[in-house]
Amino acid sequence: MQTQSATSVGVPPDLIERLKAVTGPAGYLDRPEDIAPYCIAWRDNWTGRTPLVMRPNSTAELSRIVAFCAEHGVPMVPQGGNTGVTGGGQPHPDGSEIIVSTNRMRSIRAVDPMGDTITVEAGVPLAEIQAAARKVGRLFPVSLASEGTCEIGGNISTNAGGIQVLRYGSTRALVLGLEVVLPDGRVWNGLRALRKDSAGYDLKQIFIGAEGTLGIVSAAVLRLMPLPSHSETAMVGVDGPAESVRLLGRLRESLGERVTSFELLRRSCLDYTFAVMPAHSDPLAAVHPWYVMISVDGPDAGLRGQLEEALVAAMEEGLVRDAVVASSERQRAALLALREDQGEVQKLFGIGIKHDISVPVSRIAEFMERADSALEATYPGIRLYAFGHVGDGNIHYNPFAPADWDGAAFYAETAKVNRIVHDIVVELGGSISAEHGLGQLRLGEAEYYKAAVEMELMRRIKAAIDPLNLMNPGKVLRIRPRPASV
Amino acid sequence: MQTQSATSVGVPPDLIERLKAVTGPAGYLDRPEDIAPYCIAWRDNWTGRTPLVMRPNSTAELSRIVAFCAEHGVPMVPQGGNTGVTGGGQPHPDGSEIIVSTNRMRSIRAVDPMGDTITVEAGVPLAEIQAAARKVGRLFPVSLASEGTCEIGGNISTNAGGIQVLRYGSTRALVLGLEVVLPDGRVWNGLRALRKDSAGYDLKQIFIGAEGTLGIVSAAVLRLMPLPSHSETAMVGVDGPAESVRLLGRLRESLGERVTSFELLRRSCLDYTFAVMPAHSDPLAAVHPWYVMISVDGPDAGLRGQLEEALVAAMEEGLVRDAVVASSERQRAALLALREDQGEVQKLFGIGIKHDISVPVSRIAEFMERADSALEATYPGIRLYAFGHVGDGNIHYNPFAPADWDGAAFYAETAKVNRIVHDIVVELGGSISAEHGLGQLRLGEAEYYKAAVEMELMRRIKAAIDPLNLMNPGKVLRIRPRPASV
Repeated sequence: MQTQSATSVGVPPDLIERLKAVTGPAGYLDRPEDIAPYCIAWRDNWTGRTPLVMRPNSTAELSRIVAFCAEHGVPMVPQGGNTGVTGGGQPHPDGSEIIVSTNRMRSIRAVDPMGDTITVEAGVPLAEIQAAARKVGRLFPVSLASEGTCEIGGNISTNAGGIQVLRYGSTRALVLGLEVVLPDGRVWNGLRALRKDSAGYDLKQIFIGAEGTLGIVSAAVLRLMPLPSHSETAMVGVDGPAESVRLLGRLRESLGERVTSFELLRRSCLDYTFAVMPAHSDPLAAVHPWYVMISVDGPDAGLRGQLEEALVAAMEEGLVRDAVVASSERQRAALLALREDQGEVQKLFGIGIKHDISVPVSRIAEFMERADSALEATYPGIRLYAFGHVGDGNIHYNPFAPADWDGAAFYAETAKVNRIVHDIVVELGGSISAEHGLGQLRLGEAEYYKAAVEMELMRRIKAAIDPLNLMNPGKVLRIRPRPASV
Repeated sequence: MQTQSATSVGVPPDLIERLKAVTGPAGYLDRPEDIAPYCIAWRDNWTGRTPLVMRPNSTAELSRIVAFCAEHGVPMVPQGGNTGVTGGGQPHPDGSEIIVSTNRMRSIRAVDPMGDTITVEAGVPLAEIQAAARKVGRLFPVSLASEGTCEIGGNISTNAGGIQVLRYGSTRALVLGLEVVLPDGRVWNGLRALRKDSAGYDLKQIFIGAEGTLGIVSAAVLRLMPLPSHSETAMVGVDGPAESVRLLGRLRESLGERVTSFELLRRSCLDYTFAVMPAHSDPLAAVHPWYVMISVDGPDAGLRGQLEEALVAAMEEGLVRDAVVASSERQRAALLALREDQGEVQKLFGIGIKHDISVPVSRIAEFMERADSALEATYPGIRLYAFGHVGDGNIHYNPFAPADWDGAAFYAETAKVNRIVHDIVVELGGSISAEHGLGQLRLGEAEYYKAAVEMELMRRIKAAIDPLNLMNPGKVLRIRPRPASV
């Protein structure tokens, strides 16, 4: 009678050793203390385990690593700056995957101000790309709270949004070309600096936003935009989301695409900020139920006057209760920080249930009313907290526990709260993940709400490009890896 | 001994009859004189043959037709307004495919000015969508010479470009959601009116620009933009493409995204236009080697002054030789028509060899110099003729036969001329098809220039979504259909 050996979990040790030999010591981390930061997400909400982090310094080295993994069936978790919030960059806890980090691939390969493009490797932090563009009088408009840490490969793989999508689109709209290491290790060179290319399927589109499940983005050609010479920022108090949407319409009619950001904040966002970050202060004399942070940018010296004129007209129309336009760089920074710090504020409070939802812009007010009422009915005293990108229909709707609840008890209600919120979102034709991706966090919700035919199409794409399911298995789609074998 | 019957070509007659029964008489055309216009492309460069044109009037009817064809192995050629120029909408000459036309699916399902979206069926002509948007104070910015005839389903399936891509992007950038009848007849409802959605793979992207080879787009949600209240159009004379690119940079610095169109014309475009369309006249007093037609649009009353100021500065810098800003709607229309009529001018001359190429914007001048020299060296006296979208790096580079050549003799040189022009394009990192797609025309060129790994990725996508190869077979990818059987 034969003894059945236990199913091997983890990557076989001899494969680990052979993987290390692919790059030599500069290209991997294997000590637990070095690996730990790669296994935990910044919000502390996802942890995983891996025996090895590979850190190639070039596309060629990355290609060799992936080819080795493909040949030996080692599943890979691609990782950029590790600033994601849905667990897309964390390995599973069983240690069956290696992490492939792009954070040593930091070369800016080319800047072409005349062609308005920049060519960068996956590991370049977003802020470095913004700076390189500014140096030649251009703008790279993706702008996020984590821009100092996040890397462009991750931004592309999650189709990152941020606070300037209204004007410039998400990351997808700014990607002209990609270089991708495919799941079998071959390199697809689609690094085209072209505005138009209709010669066949636009392959880069399938890798953008795929969260590393179809290959590893190794480099990209990005669009640059004219660098606006004038920027103005305002904070206005409004009655509610409905008024904010109408205000946005008015501003776009009078200022056109120069409206860059239009960010809604519930009054509670300000109150909680003041509670944990005392450096912040109230931007307006009176208290208002909702606020909008507005940024406009353009080449016109008269921009400030145009913004003020538009806001005065909106006040006369009853859309705006009060408004301040920042009159100094310091004041402007303070207004921007009030919006940007919301991620940190929530982390300090630590008792919210998060939703990154989108609905058609015209249905934002309806969403907010229905979600507020439903939650208040179920959880009396719930502390409503929401902010987001009204111009994109994207709200971070993250209610806090009622004051008399224990945070953990509220957190235990997550599935129920999600169902209440997401049912309303889906009824309004919205998405349960607007800009954070599915990662591990939203897999179940996606399966619950998506039509069978849509799930099937996703699985067909996955199977066509990554038939062995070695690329970030179990993210986006719930397909677990086969264990690696020698 | 058994007689081997000849391989059946064409769709078996009993399948034709059963297909007709799917819709009844209102839903098909089977008389040769009715079918003929669907089989020939407007430039007369592609003709095909089919026994049947199906014309469903709804997504449900379209779905039933496709399901029947899938079950019985009948290949389909989806067709919109039939304005394509690369044979993507024509059946093959063997009559083995049916045409599925969307031109009875003409409903505008919804207009949402507050959400800045419009939901339309595939057969709505582009101009009707523009008009519906204008009616609610919005702009749908895709703009093409064929806008009165082309249909949005075709625009989406070819990712149509046109003269406002510089500012608003190609059709892809304006599609928020799609409804697609898949190759097996099932309907994928991705009709989301969302600015942001990162809940899984962005499936709509694979159908946009796929030329009907992965399914039939039946409806779409499109983005609307603020309708500019002021529009100005100028024609300027410049020394060459290099100056035009530098002028574009200057204008974008001073006017930002308000630069909507920036269209280069070689002097020969004007000369040939005057020869065949005597209503046109020279827009500037002197003759210049190159011209740029510039449109700027925005909400500012001061726009005209800003444009004039920018052009004066460019003249002082030596970038512009002369300029006129249209001072009446009539003059403006005349300038726009000079650009728009180039397609018709070529058709009247009928002796050009066409290239729809793109290169990085910063390499346009280099492309033009190298292509001009190479062709002049090979074909002394060749009449150079080129126009296009400088801001997108997209040039329609369509040289005419030397004056002493017979048109047909020059046309016989097509493969050689293509190789000269496309070799330079590819060396400069460009595309052999910028906005017209591959259709049938560019299949060989795509195979010649594309890397094996790219062709393989395209084939994998095709096989994943249309495993029976029934959707527009032999377009984009050279895979011929299996003959239909009962």
